[in-house]
Amino acid sequence: MKGIILIMDGLGDRPLKSLGNKTPLQAAKTPNMDKMAEQGINGLMDSIKPGIIPGSDTAHISILGYDPYEVYTGRGPFEASGVGLEIFPGDIAFRCNFSTADENQIITDRRAGRIREGTKDIIDSLNHMVIEGYDDVKIIFKESTGHRAVLVLRGNGLSDAVSDADPKKEGNAPKKVVPTDDSPEAKKTADILNKLIIKSYEMIKDHPINKKRIENNQPPANIIIPRGAGAVPEVEPLNEKYNIKSACIAETGLIMGIARFAGMDIIEVDGATGGTDTNLDNISDTIVNHLKGVDYNFFLINIDGADEAGHDGNSKEKVEFIEKVDEIVIKKLLDIEDCYIILTADHSTPISVMDHTADPVPMVINGPEVRVDFVKQFSEIEAHKGGLCRIQGSNVMDILMDLMNNSTKFGA
Amino acid sequence: MKGIILIMDGLGDRPLKSLGNKTPLQAAKTPNMDKMAEQGINGLMDSIKPGIIPGSDTAHISILGYDPYEVYTGRGPFEASGVGLEIFPGDIAFRCNFSTADENQIITDRRAGRIREGTKDIIDSLNHMVIEGYDDVKIIFKESTGHRAVLVLRGNGLSDAVSDADPKKEGNAPKKVVPTDDSPEAKKTADILNKLIIKSYEMIKDHPINKKRIENNQPPANIIIPRGAGAVPEVEPLNEKYNIKSACIAETGLIMGIARFAGMDIIEVDGATGGTDTNLDNISDTIVNHLKGVDYNFFLINIDGADEAGHDGNSKEKVEFIEKVDEIVIKKLLDIEDCYIILTADHSTPISVMDHTADPVPMVINGPEVRVDFVKQFSEIEAHKGGLCRIQGSNVMDILMDLMNNSTKFGA
Repeated sequence: MKGIILIMDGLGDRPLKSLGNKTPLQAAKTPNMDKMAEQGINGLMDSIKPGIIPGSDTAHISILGYDPYEVYTGRGPFEASGVGLEIFPGDIAFRCNFSTADENQIITDRRAGRIREGTKDIIDSLNHMVIEGYDDVKIIFKESTGHRAVLVLRGNGLSDAVSDADPKKEGNAPKKVVPTDDSPEAKKTADILNKLIIKSYEMIKDHPINKKRIENNQPPANIIIPRGAGAVPEVEPLNEKYNIKSACIAETGLIMGIARFAGMDIIEVDGATGGTDTNLDNISDTIVNHLKGVDYNFFLINIDGADEAGHDGNSKEKVEFIEKVDEIVIKKLLDIEDCYIILTADHSTPISVMDHTADPVPMVINGPEVRVDFVKQFSEIEAHKGGLCRIQGSNVMDILMDLMNNSTKFGA
Repeated sequence: MKGIILIMDGLGDRPLKSLGNKTPLQAAKTPNMDKMAEQGINGLMDSIKPGIIPGSDTAHISILGYDPYEVYTGRGPFEASGVGLEIFPGDIAFRCNFSTADENQIITDRRAGRIREGTKDIIDSLNHMVIEGYDDVKIIFKESTGHRAVLVLRGNGLSDAVSDADPKKEGNAPKKVVPTDDSPEAKKTADILNKLIIKSYEMIKDHPINKKRIENNQPPANIIIPRGAGAVPEVEPLNEKYNIKSACIAETGLIMGIARFAGMDIIEVDGATGGTDTNLDNISDTIVNHLKGVDYNFFLINIDGADEAGHDGNSKEKVEFIEKVDEIVIKKLLDIEDCYIILTADHSTPISVMDHTADPVPMVINGPEVRVDFVKQFSEIEAHKGGLCRIQGSNVMDILMDLMNNSTKFGA
């Protein structure tokens, strides 16, 4: 027996006047999702708990059965994992911006003109960096998308109790990093970071990529500004925790990062963009093909487009994307046998708010032995009438494992 | 965007044969509450958790987002706060009765003939009290309603691990206060209390008020009997916890005490009695006027009459009071815009039990962006069909803050 959790990122919404007081999910024509509702068990789900606004990261952590209040140590480690850096408990990870600094190291562009190309080359020349007095600490950079990068400090006696260097506004110098507790580890880490920022400027200000950018009147990517310090936590690998063979099909670095973190395999999909223009055919083919195989019996799937449309406040785009997922992905899943399929979201991203909210999300479970209820439409408004009532993210894996006959009794 | 939590104290009930197996809330004609149900999202709420019988104090603590198992240290501190005493972490607070003792200090009337007037004068003469050997401990008395008063001990090395002095039955001496743990602090506090009780008799037995009462054949209020010791806990002010400007409109000292405790402003209402005879017009005008203002964006409102009728076991009074609140208060709230309004109770006080029970209470939320469900009547029996399903008191502020767009994402 196999299991799938298919998360439509940011799917949940609120009733919109422009849609006749329907949510985008209600307004969309979703015959296949509705069929799932009809032949399944339905409910509402709070990824973390009622009233708490989840990030996509904390929501996925919770849905995978980890406690985000324990595991989530800031965004740095998840970003680092997301860009494919192998990280270890004890490492301190940071998100970084490439920024533009003038000769006095005043930041003139926080995003280095939203640089899109060449950051890998610049990173390569930074990865030799050794900070004077701290040659026991390994410094690892890796480029991410656009002006973004990741920094990992590896060594003894480090701490994530340090402030951000991001000056937030152009025209200021990078903020001095300060320890946020009294430990010598925090003091050491802050000192390393302050030296690292200056050193980054010295090492890359004359990099060929930057010389070329200056020639082209583009702001050079000549300084690294770290923030979001997080100590890499230790988690029990998902495969051990639930005795499964798990894989993740996701579109964004953040979700892949969480999957790597949990020790899951990552299955890449050509043409997956994380936007509403993503290649849903390839995504659905990838799911169906791997379901036929024997390598995995659990899949976490994240399709990101609805969240993007929500953040953009574009209801038409959200409705149309939901309809496309229904037609291309969900339709194919309906034919699959010997599998429990959970369709849900990680959080709501209402069009009216253009950001995440705590409104619970609909959930439906299909599979051979679910207690089919009376709900006939997959939506935020109908779901609560179903047999799942209102559950939490931390319940989801346990429920799925039980249905898959893959968990053990507590007691006799 | 503003927010209101309107708590009808003790509103919840059980079906009554005498009302055709309806609850008082079902039996009452409540067109305005029903309109709230119809245009809102509904559910059941357990103030603490299912099956736990809440006090009004612990219920309100929980609904305000504090953990009553951490914060609630006994009734003393909340009573003290309720009568307007400024109390500080480390203080030990007690509820007290004025009682009547004979010359051998045997209690002949535990409530001093339910004395109603003059206790302030008597308290004034007690507030000089110094206990021999403990002149480092400040002794603060304050009268409450009727025969009730409050005592606060302030000083180093005190403890709330002490027993009650209340003999429970007339004809007995005050119970000797004993330490309930082995600490020197508890021993010291018990010793202070035992001396304080005797000293109170000496100081007030010949007070002019008492002389007059004796002349009028009324039992004198000539001894103080403390109970309900509680160490004043430290809590994060509500305004900081949720980044709001909060005020409380309540009728009873207990609820005002909790609000003060949470650092909320108190808005007094003329004619608010805490009974079914309270001035609901003044209450509703006060709410509406302050909603127009800019001083506050969050209001906790407690209307107490339904609880009183419940404790009295008077179903007719409970039904009629609910109808009056519907007609006078709820009707006015229906017109308010740009505001989320939560109507609920703190606990059930069923007519048949004449005390609190753990039955969950109905809740409805009105406001611009709620996911309207299919519930059309505000009652204990219909509410669970709504989109909130069954939530807990600790979720309420988080849900409201999310709707008010006044909270932050956990994660990215």
